[in-house]
Amino acid sequence: MTAVSKAYSDLEQRFREISVLGDVSRVLQWDQAVMMPPGGGGARAEQIATIDTLRHGKLTDPAMADLFDAAADTESLDEWQHANLREMRRKWSLARAVPADLVSAHSMACSHCEGAWRVARAANDFAGIAAGLQHVLDLTREIGEARAEALACPVYEALLAAYEPGGSTAEIDRLFDACAGFLPDLIDDVLAHQAASAPPVPPPGPFPIDAQRTLTRRIAETIGLDFDTARLDESAHPFSSGVPEDSRITVRYNEADFAEGLMAVLHESGHATYERNRPADWRLQPVGEARGMVIHESQSLLVEMQVCRSAEFYRYAAPLLQQAFGGAGDAWEPSNLHRRSLLVRRSFIRVDADEVTYPAHVILRYRLEQALLAGDLSIAELPGAWNEGFQRLLGVAPPDDQQGCLQDIHWYSGAWGYFPTYTLGAMAAAQIFDAALKSQPEMPEAIARGDFLPLMAWLGTHIHRKGSLLSTGELLEAATGASLQAEIFESHLRRRYLGAAG
Amino acid sequence: MTAVSKAYSDLEQRFREISVLGDVSRVLQWDQAVMMPPGGGGARAEQIATIDTLRHGKLTDPAMADLFDAAADTESLDEWQHANLREMRRKWSLARAVPADLVSAHSMACSHCEGAWRVARAANDFAGIAAGLQHVLDLTREIGEARAEALACPVYEALLAAYEPGGSTAEIDRLFDACAGFLPDLIDDVLAHQAASAPPVPPPGPFPIDAQRTLTRRIAETIGLDFDTARLDESAHPFSSGVPEDSRITVRYNEADFAEGLMAVLHESGHATYERNRPADWRLQPVGEARGMVIHESQSLLVEMQVCRSAEFYRYAAPLLQQAFGGAGDAWEPSNLHRRSLLVRRSFIRVDADEVTYPAHVILRYRLEQALLAGDLSIAELPGAWNEGFQRLLGVAPPDDQQGCLQDIHWYSGAWGYFPTYTLGAMAAAQIFDAALKSQPEMPEAIARGDFLPLMAWLGTHIHRKGSLLSTGELLEAATGASLQAEIFESHLRRRYLGAAG
Repeated sequence: MTAVSKAYSDLEQRFREISVLGDVSRVLQWDQAVMMPPGGGGARAEQIATIDTLRHGKLTDPAMADLFDAAADTESLDEWQHANLREMRRKWSLARAVPADLVSAHSMACSHCEGAWRVARAANDFAGIAAGLQHVLDLTREIGEARAEALACPVYEALLAAYEPGGSTAEIDRLFDACAGFLPDLIDDVLAHQAASAPPVPPPGPFPIDAQRTLTRRIAETIGLDFDTARLDESAHPFSSGVPEDSRITVRYNEADFAEGLMAVLHESGHATYERNRPADWRLQPVGEARGMVIHESQSLLVEMQVCRSAEFYRYAAPLLQQAFGGAGDAWEPSNLHRRSLLVRRSFIRVDADEVTYPAHVILRYRLEQALLAGDLSIAELPGAWNEGFQRLLGVAPPDDQQGCLQDIHWYSGAWGYFPTYTLGAMAAAQIFDAALKSQPEMPEAIARGDFLPLMAWLGTHIHRKGSLLSTGELLEAATGASLQAEIFESHLRRRYLGAAG
Repeated sequence: MTAVSKAYSDLEQRFREISVLGDVSRVLQWDQAVMMPPGGGGARAEQIATIDTLRHGKLTDPAMADLFDAAADTESLDEWQHANLREMRRKWSLARAVPADLVSAHSMACSHCEGAWRVARAANDFAGIAAGLQHVLDLTREIGEARAEALACPVYEALLAAYEPGGSTAEIDRLFDACAGFLPDLIDDVLAHQAASAPPVPPPGPFPIDAQRTLTRRIAETIGLDFDTARLDESAHPFSSGVPEDSRITVRYNEADFAEGLMAVLHESGHATYERNRPADWRLQPVGEARGMVIHESQSLLVEMQVCRSAEFYRYAAPLLQQAFGGAGDAWEPSNLHRRSLLVRRSFIRVDADEVTYPAHVILRYRLEQALLAGDLSIAELPGAWNEGFQRLLGVAPPDDQQGCLQDIHWYSGAWGYFPTYTLGAMAAAQIFDAALKSQPEMPEAIARGDFLPLMAWLGTHIHRKGSLLSTGELLEAATGASLQAEIFESHLRRRYLGAAG
């Protein structure tokens, strides 16, 4: 590292503290979702809001402008420091657009609404959460408007920017329109193709939760989690949190279907391995963070959808599943389990959806959240619009809001503008795995032996250890030779669901 | 509430934020002790230090002096506000004596040493933790010296002040000397008295941990915990944390002896009910906090030692114990279980000690920590001095450091000056329960029915809901009619262990 200006060093010190405060907020939120008894919600909301507001205050400190000016002579900075300064400035621009009292009010509203959502979802009571959701929407829109004015961009992009730096609705619309173009016919074709052969045999349940816990823990270890530096817990909505030396992933088990918990653990393990392999030299600095949620979701979906719905994965996993549940016979054969994992259905729950119909779940949410933010759709109209949109995109309508607009935590906890990153991530996953396979054709055979090291080594080099050095587009170009394309995703789906086994 | 000055209102707002930051730090520490995988220690230490330093910065904000000056016109303040201002000023005085970098260094050292202590204790490796403990001691002494200079008091009192406001070594010495005066003969007499009759029959174990979990959870509920607003978990050292709406108590179960876990849960439930019943109107204000650790320990020991080693408690608990462990026969009779709970032994572990020998454990630690702080004893000499002192006070010496100077978390986690509050608390517990019984003679019969409400109502009125309105001395005077006296404790011990059943 070359000698750097005092201003740059000062910024590094300040952003280290800002980063630590972000990690503290995540501990509070992890505990809220996984451990906290319901009565703790009010106190916890104030705790999180206090930390978020302090963090915002550090980010918008009046001294920042002068420090950025003084650090602007970038000749003394190396490539990583230069990128770090760029990422610091990006965070600063987003934060300074929003007044502190709005940050605090939004944080409180989101904590309260998230707590109420847990109750409302369990009770299938959308009416009971509507006012809380309205409050979150109003404050989220206010934040979006404040940022949009400062950054001279549309409100939706100003919200998206917190999850996907540089993300644009024009790009999303282009990719989603491509998807929406080939998807309806593809779903029909896949369902017809499936119907033409005998269905795979369902392994007989129930699948005891304790056995699922032991099994998923072992598989997470195989992927790269080490439980001296990680935890696996249960929560209403699976998620990944923590810090690289203390990964916290959660899952929701279903005694009637082991695949739900297994797939959730694979997904969250993909997120966690990305976090764990971020560049160690840039711990607690902006450039050392994950690039954004598109690449983050690409890493979870690469593990869950690309790698772990392959014939090779089930050659590794079938004996473990048999052992865990005392299974024997045709239902437990690797090829049968593999075919089961590729079943396509018009179903209601996004997190349990197959990869062919998944984009439709996301496109629905993307369109609805744009309409809600723009004021073209009211909260009261949301359940109806959800069901209509679902019918139009997937040909069925959910029987209730629990399986409809109440299913996901995102809007209730304030994560507006997040949903598109799932399907952009799915496309990126297909593209990245395609490149990885071309570079290392022996990878699938390693996975059949339960050896994820070659995969993780390739991802570490090309994705994980790059942190936020490059933009999402540059990172994808460098790793795969191309910008994000819907075609590779489409080819993957056609090959796997209509052609040879994927 | 009368109209108050802007300065006072501003102070309330500032102390609310300071209090929330304290609660955040406690969440981080709870997670560290109960949930965190070992690898997370480094990141967590920095998180806690960051919050502690921010909290210290808020407390020592340069604007504070002017605010206290402007709020000094106390005519407009009511009794509670007046006391609140006094408590604010006390916290401010303690904090401003210590420079921020020392707060941060001390916090980091304590987190690291506490983590290392878990390993060293399990491995019986005092040498492995000696350097870490020395570092904590050095920084703790530095804090004590800085405070002592500012407050013009001895170093030990300056540390004690953080746990027991107004605590004085002269008072402790007077009470401990009284104790050390009657204790050796009393222990001999009790052991002789015990030896004169057939020993109680030990209920046959093992006692499955799952059954202990269910049982202790039920008993904690009976005492006043409600698991919609509380958690009961396991950790290396039992403790009580959280906020009134989200109590977090922990326990360590022993499969060979159910009494250890049961007594720990009773003890921590006593702490938790105090916290839960603090004055609701003064949530997050200094005057709304618990009075200090002497009163806090009095509340835990009142439940554990006074109430739950009574014949009446075992009339309630014996059927639950029988049911939990499938017990039947003489060993499970209430009178036998009661006699078992009153067994006095010269044993090594403080948290498992009976109430007759317990003060000797504390007096040893009190003397040793004074000598270590004064530099009269080195860390290297600690194991030897511990064992010698133990031999002198209790007539036996521990076989290893795990059962000696490694057993307690306090010194390793930075809690120097804390130990005397246990025995002062035990004396206060005897005195408070004595007063409660005189006021409500029917209380024991209620407890025999598993009804803790009369007890908790009396404690709520006379102790819990007073918060920090009064000093420890005033609070005891108001509740019991007398200042803290060793004689009531001595009478209690003589009555229970040498006379009629207590």
